[in-house]
Amino acid sequence: MTALMQQGAAAKKASALTALAGTDLKNKALHAVADSIEKRADEWLAANAADIKAAEESGMSTSMLDRLRLTPERISDVANGVRHVAALPDPIGDVLRTEVRPNGLQIKRVRVPLGVIGIIYEARPNVTVDAAALCLKAGSACILRGGKEAINSNRCVVEIMREAISSVGLPEDSVSLVQDISRESASELMAMTEYVDVLIPRGGASLIRAVAANSKVPVIRTGEGVCHVYIDKDADLSMGAKILYNAKCSRPSVCNAAECILVHEDVIKDFFKEALPLLDQKNVVLRADEKALAVLGDRAVPATDEDWDTEYGDFILAVKTVSGPDEACDFISKHGTGHSEAIVTENAETADRFLQAVDAAAVYVNASTRFTDGGEFGMGAEIGISTQKLHARGPMGLEEMTSYKYVVTGNGQVR
Amino acid sequence: MTALMQQGAAAKKASALTALAGTDLKNKALHAVADSIEKRADEWLAANAADIKAAEESGMSTSMLDRLRLTPERISDVANGVRHVAALPDPIGDVLRTEVRPNGLQIKRVRVPLGVIGIIYEARPNVTVDAAALCLKAGSACILRGGKEAINSNRCVVEIMREAISSVGLPEDSVSLVQDISRESASELMAMTEYVDVLIPRGGASLIRAVAANSKVPVIRTGEGVCHVYIDKDADLSMGAKILYNAKCSRPSVCNAAECILVHEDVIKDFFKEALPLLDQKNVVLRADEKALAVLGDRAVPATDEDWDTEYGDFILAVKTVSGPDEACDFISKHGTGHSEAIVTENAETADRFLQAVDAAAVYVNASTRFTDGGEFGMGAEIGISTQKLHARGPMGLEEMTSYKYVVTGNGQVR
Repeated sequence: MTALMQQGAAAKKASALTALAGTDLKNKALHAVADSIEKRADEWLAANAADIKAAEESGMSTSMLDRLRLTPERISDVANGVRHVAALPDPIGDVLRTEVRPNGLQIKRVRVPLGVIGIIYEARPNVTVDAAALCLKAGSACILRGGKEAINSNRCVVEIMREAISSVGLPEDSVSLVQDISRESASELMAMTEYVDVLIPRGGASLIRAVAANSKVPVIRTGEGVCHVYIDKDADLSMGAKILYNAKCSRPSVCNAAECILVHEDVIKDFFKEALPLLDQKNVVLRADEKALAVLGDRAVPATDEDWDTEYGDFILAVKTVSGPDEACDFISKHGTGHSEAIVTENAETADRFLQAVDAAAVYVNASTRFTDGGEFGMGAEIGISTQKLHARGPMGLEEMTSYKYVVTGNGQVR
Repeated sequence: MTALMQQGAAAKKASALTALAGTDLKNKALHAVADSIEKRADEWLAANAADIKAAEESGMSTSMLDRLRLTPERISDVANGVRHVAALPDPIGDVLRTEVRPNGLQIKRVRVPLGVIGIIYEARPNVTVDAAALCLKAGSACILRGGKEAINSNRCVVEIMREAISSVGLPEDSVSLVQDISRESASELMAMTEYVDVLIPRGGASLIRAVAANSKVPVIRTGEGVCHVYIDKDADLSMGAKILYNAKCSRPSVCNAAECILVHEDVIKDFFKEALPLLDQKNVVLRADEKALAVLGDRAVPATDEDWDTEYGDFILAVKTVSGPDEACDFISKHGTGHSEAIVTENAETADRFLQAVDAAAVYVNASTRFTDGGEFGMGAEIGISTQKLHARGPMGLEEMTSYKYVVTGNGQVR
């Protein structure tokens, strides 16, 4: 048995106990975690400083360094995030359905934990705590594999969490960290079907695709977002411009940001009269098809085929002219990632057709794609945005991090 | 593009139309399928005769031949099965939840089809029709890959179904058959993430494990059943004997049949006084651990380690003595397949502990494991019994064959 397999076996064993832990005990553990993280913030900051130093020396980009870096304020946010999870309703044990069959059997569908959840993610120490807190509240154990650039930060905070969890009587192995961050350990984790019930990759598209393609453990794909806003000929163009500006510019690095605007050819000129002054505020680069170039002139550069499938994560926008909602839906079907898609139109019939035809986790009429988020959907917190159709779709809150079982009570029934 | 990829692309295109088809149109298609199957029964019988002849020449076992063989009565049952699916409620379009957020956004969670469902199964021509009917009613297209021994039967009935479906105006590509039954085509199907949303393998454990281990397309594992009945010291032993007899003997080839009895050491002698006369009726072979052998004597043979993990599918039963419910739960955790597990006890506290601790799709107190079945659970029909925790668990009826999406309606909201 390798070290990772032993870790998997320990997590599975722990998950049998977290599954049976009551709400109070789980919340007690979460508060202990939050308190310890604040009390031991200096340890965590020191460990993070070592990661930051190594990352700077290796030439890490500014945006990645920013994600890696902890500050006292960020640590306080992380701890409060854990307290927030403690305050959320406990989904475990909910009876989803009860039926008494004609033969007298009582069949209850009861919400139960998933078991052991593996999370593979990049060098973001806050995710280590967020993910562990959500898994624990959902009654599952977790195995965390963060980016190797954050290994010191992660080792430190996982140890803090394990001590806090065991201080209230839950098994420390409910949370554990993959220590050896290598290709081999990733492959091993993806093959541990005996111990891991689901793997959730969080991060860039290449990470997610690699895990989905190679894992034998069931995977939930999250967070790939090539999202579109379609401006219909019957749109309120001023509303459309504001929605586009918000969807593209309010936080371009996140997965629910828009990457491509589809505009009805009849209104493209008038639309950009409204939209350009907004997009100019952020110097958004426009990569446009031929028809749009004719309208946008020097303000845009020609798009290549690659643009239609790119999640820029930046102030760049692909611009595509379409002949109507059908072409918009076809284009989205070819180039979307099943995340969030919006139409702006005052025509209720066109809106309905779009909402029905577009196959994505969230479809919008007259609102920004940026709302696809656990908090905005009222879930309180989320582990990610699922872009697949199996198990859960869209924001995954605590309920979406569970399974169910049938509890059947009889008095001797046979078939 | 290979032939199979073209088939996948055609299925995906068709699935956009089946997704939008109303209940009436889908039901009309299903009735057309049922009527055509009956009208063209002679064609299907002739095609089946060719398969049977080849199978007999190749020395196929009697039980497999039985599953492959069609008769006029069986064809009539198959057609009526399709009509039964038509009569079931349509899950698509159900609004599962509606919420109006403080910002005025209306968020609806709406049930939608999975898209394209791939079914990999063995040489059972009735499954070809059952599966296609369920997928169509659930708004999805399907790609069927049946065992090669049934290829003539399958080609014939898939052609009958495609003609019937297109006669009412739905795309014939909503149902299609993999024509080349080879390892290569299986591998290709398992890699077609672009076109196939989920693969459901139906059949023996080796088939299911191979698909789960190799597929890049998300898989729902179904039908692996090493199910246990635990006879507690507080059991009504006569009830326990009847439940065991039913769970083992009523239909040993199915996945919800019991393969192993766990008996509390305090009652093993008395229990078998009740159980043996029943098991003797079917000459059930008993493979027992040492303590049980001491009680059963010549009536049993010694079990080997392999017995604890074997799905016999036959009149064979593994017998294991345990010291109490905790050992029973541990044993089930090690050797169960997450299908169906039963306890027989009059002690409510022991029952609750078992029901909570055992991690399986269905957990029973004082009833036979044989009830884990879509029909018995009131679902009307099922595509299989899921033994995994992701997406759906236990019997998968029409509702479990769906996904959902969020439909969000605003009036210009931005974030």
